[in-house]
Amino acid sequence: MARRTGRRASQSNTLVQPPYRQLANNFAPVEVLSPEQVERIHASALDVLEDVGLRVMDAEARSLLREGGFKVDEATEQVFFDAERVMELVKLAPDVASVRGKDPQKRLKMGGGHLAISAVGGAPFVSDLQRGRRAGSHADLCDLMRLTQMLNALHMEGGCSVEPCDLPQDSRHLDVYLAACTLTDKPWKPQTVGAARARDSLEMAKILHQENNDQLAADPVFMTTTNTNTPLVLDAEIAQGVLTLARAGQVICVTPFALSGAMAPVTVAGALVLQTAENLASCALVQLARPGCPYIYGSFISNVDMKSGSPAFGTPEYTLGAQASGQIARFYGLPFRSSNVTASNAPDAQAAYESQMSLWGAITGHASVINQGAGWLEGGLVASFEKLIIDVEMLQMMGAWMEGLVVDDVAIGMDAIRDVGPGGHFFGTAHTLERYRDAFYTPLVSDWSNFENWTEAGAKDTSVRAHELCQTLLKTYEKPALDPAIGEELEAYVAKRKEEISRNGL
Amino acid sequence: MARRTGRRASQSNTLVQPPYRQLANNFAPVEVLSPEQVERIHASALDVLEDVGLRVMDAEARSLLREGGFKVDEATEQVFFDAERVMELVKLAPDVASVRGKDPQKRLKMGGGHLAISAVGGAPFVSDLQRGRRAGSHADLCDLMRLTQMLNALHMEGGCSVEPCDLPQDSRHLDVYLAACTLTDKPWKPQTVGAARARDSLEMAKILHQENNDQLAADPVFMTTTNTNTPLVLDAEIAQGVLTLARAGQVICVTPFALSGAMAPVTVAGALVLQTAENLASCALVQLARPGCPYIYGSFISNVDMKSGSPAFGTPEYTLGAQASGQIARFYGLPFRSSNVTASNAPDAQAAYESQMSLWGAITGHASVINQGAGWLEGGLVASFEKLIIDVEMLQMMGAWMEGLVVDDVAIGMDAIRDVGPGGHFFGTAHTLERYRDAFYTPLVSDWSNFENWTEAGAKDTSVRAHELCQTLLKTYEKPALDPAIGEELEAYVAKRKEEISRNGL
Repeated sequence: MARRTGRRASQSNTLVQPPYRQLANNFAPVEVLSPEQVERIHASALDVLEDVGLRVMDAEARSLLREGGFKVDEATEQVFFDAERVMELVKLAPDVASVRGKDPQKRLKMGGGHLAISAVGGAPFVSDLQRGRRAGSHADLCDLMRLTQMLNALHMEGGCSVEPCDLPQDSRHLDVYLAACTLTDKPWKPQTVGAARARDSLEMAKILHQENNDQLAADPVFMTTTNTNTPLVLDAEIAQGVLTLARAGQVICVTPFALSGAMAPVTVAGALVLQTAENLASCALVQLARPGCPYIYGSFISNVDMKSGSPAFGTPEYTLGAQASGQIARFYGLPFRSSNVTASNAPDAQAAYESQMSLWGAITGHASVINQGAGWLEGGLVASFEKLIIDVEMLQMMGAWMEGLVVDDVAIGMDAIRDVGPGGHFFGTAHTLERYRDAFYTPLVSDWSNFENWTEAGAKDTSVRAHELCQTLLKTYEKPALDPAIGEELEAYVAKRKEEISRNGL
Repeated sequence: MARRTGRRASQSNTLVQPPYRQLANNFAPVEVLSPEQVERIHASALDVLEDVGLRVMDAEARSLLREGGFKVDEATEQVFFDAERVMELVKLAPDVASVRGKDPQKRLKMGGGHLAISAVGGAPFVSDLQRGRRAGSHADLCDLMRLTQMLNALHMEGGCSVEPCDLPQDSRHLDVYLAACTLTDKPWKPQTVGAARARDSLEMAKILHQENNDQLAADPVFMTTTNTNTPLVLDAEIAQGVLTLARAGQVICVTPFALSGAMAPVTVAGALVLQTAENLASCALVQLARPGCPYIYGSFISNVDMKSGSPAFGTPEYTLGAQASGQIARFYGLPFRSSNVTASNAPDAQAAYESQMSLWGAITGHASVINQGAGWLEGGLVASFEKLIIDVEMLQMMGAWMEGLVVDDVAIGMDAIRDVGPGGHFFGTAHTLERYRDAFYTPLVSDWSNFENWTEAGAKDTSVRAHELCQTLLKTYEKPALDPAIGEELEAYVAKRKEEISRNGL
């Protein structure tokens, strides 16, 4: 049970935590839909694809779909999907996807009962208790990557945790990739807005892994995090990014942002139909680009507050939507992406309970990958350092829960129960002494001391303790090993491309 | 979907919330034990009862057990339980228990897929943001009862939410009962320390309901919250309280406090065995006192932090223990009690995520009753006003989750999807306009406003908003109707008993 070994990092300057390991589903998923309801959503999604279709704003993607057997209306850019042909294509996608980091030990399966978790991605703002809320910077991005590297509960970089707003927009993806290559040896994520950013990620992966296109395609390194524009639109730039990475054999995940009451019908059922239609269409396109390319069913169903129009996250509807999405993805034999979300403006009780609602939805829904796993605040507008630590605690706890219980005669300890008898205690029994070090989950930031000790230590709430732990961790961060020649080659590539971009644009 | 109707109470001075209603399990429970593991725990518990036995410190209870067919060692007070006979008795307990409040609409089933939730009980301290942490008082107790009465997510009073430490110890139970009779019309809980306190609760229930002993027994009003002294001791005073209420046909729940590594083996498996043994013995005793008396399997498995000796709550082990306890209780056809717990010293992120870990364990474990459902802080040392509100929000959310989804053609809204088409929005569709008022969960204390609005409103975190909501609610509290003659009769009983107690002791 080495998995539960841990020590409070803030007490020791050495972070002891559960090892970097893939999580696995040992229990049956929670199913909130009947098989008939899953069939109803499936049938309705196919109806939508046949009758309404998807507006595909990229000409190349439309050609591919036309050649693939679908009806295209060039005037409206709408593609109408024959149900049988869609399902034929969706069946080509494997039920398990994998990615890998620079460290050969950091290889992840997604699907088939395996779960991987990535850090927050794409936030425009960053916050911490000391410096407050501000636009993201390259320095913040690097700090978030360092924490992602250090914390074993995070399996993957988040896909640019926070926008480095202090860098030029057209070339900052190169700085993000370079940071990912050098600050972490975990899998990292490419950007899919346009073909050029996607190509740069592939080129840099080839340098980082010292591999060629075929090797990257045979054993993918990337999972995309991208989206349709719900309802029923695939943006041109995103289509180009997806096609570039699909042709390179990387793992594609397209997530409709199906906000019930706004971009989707005002019911979870309606949002599930749109989400499914957009996933089936995206998966079909990906299979036309490269048959057998891994595709992950992207799910992100929430709703707007119908009184204010604000988006809500981590609600009961979110939990149900995640669990239902899992059932639908399994119906297609596809891995399934979920998230860890909250609308809270502070790393407080609301942030924790909304995140828990979404995480339990993802985990009992048998998510294959949880994006935005740690650090998400304010509906994704902010990457919060404190929230990242709090989320990692929750992820560690859920990882320990997923391992289940050992129940056999040795674990039960009948001899100890007999020896102690009525009214005794178990502190000194051999059964206890043999096991106590690793018997139970050890927390990262939870404080279990009594009120007097807690008060004496400054009455620090969870967010304050998380802030301090961040500081301690960043002080002890060590860069993963990288052949200096590879580092130079990466830097040279970035310099060359920046020069090209400054001359010709992206 | 009127259930989801709600409005922020703090905005309106009128609390609009989901109605007072029984929760029901619509989804399959999460099972963390294999059937063989359940059998192993069952067999081990019977071994413990046969070989080690239970120390029963009350002579009357020992006589009952001896007459019931069990071997008793009077020198050690140990009772050894024949396995077959225990199981014969346990089978007499029904699989569903019920209690009722003064309001005939407030009738609760526990078991058979029904779930009831009670407020915090038994805390020696109380806290709120304004006045801090302090010893409990009668005024605090009354305020907590008022909130329990107002908040529909709480089905039952908690069994003295906080000790009124400003009242004499020997008679304060009378003040607690009087407060429960007059401040709430929900079911309330008797005290089981000694026969006298239990008898007083029955006498006051007879006055409150204007019923006789037979009527109370035929349709119980009380569920006990009491405990064994794990490992394997039944205290004399508790035995007397339990026997008094069992003979009166009330619902008995005995909960071993099986803290792994201290009073139970250092494994969850070992704690489950002790917990099961103590429940089976307690249930057998109850059946001997009154065959067919409702008995609820009490579960409260947690562990001590093996580094500091502090108890931990809401850990992964707690979640697993709750789900496993549910499986074991269902194996015996007994309803099952779980809890909402945290070790946090403040109503912060830790309090929320530990509570969520325990609530998800209880709810997916198909608990029949969740005690300590709202307000528990510091491992039960404190009843927190803010935590009570935060917990009610979480309970409301989980209640909405338990209701599941409507998935049919009408809910899906195919016409709306067709009408909106690619790139539109659903704000103005007929499908949305017909449903938007009650479409989604409406929060109690969660704040979904954006950062700018939240900052302008004072940047209040969840605990501050919860504090303000408490103040608003207490200002608008109204006493439930009670026949003044009954009120006078209750007061007269309390006065008479106080006089007797001051003269002769309890």
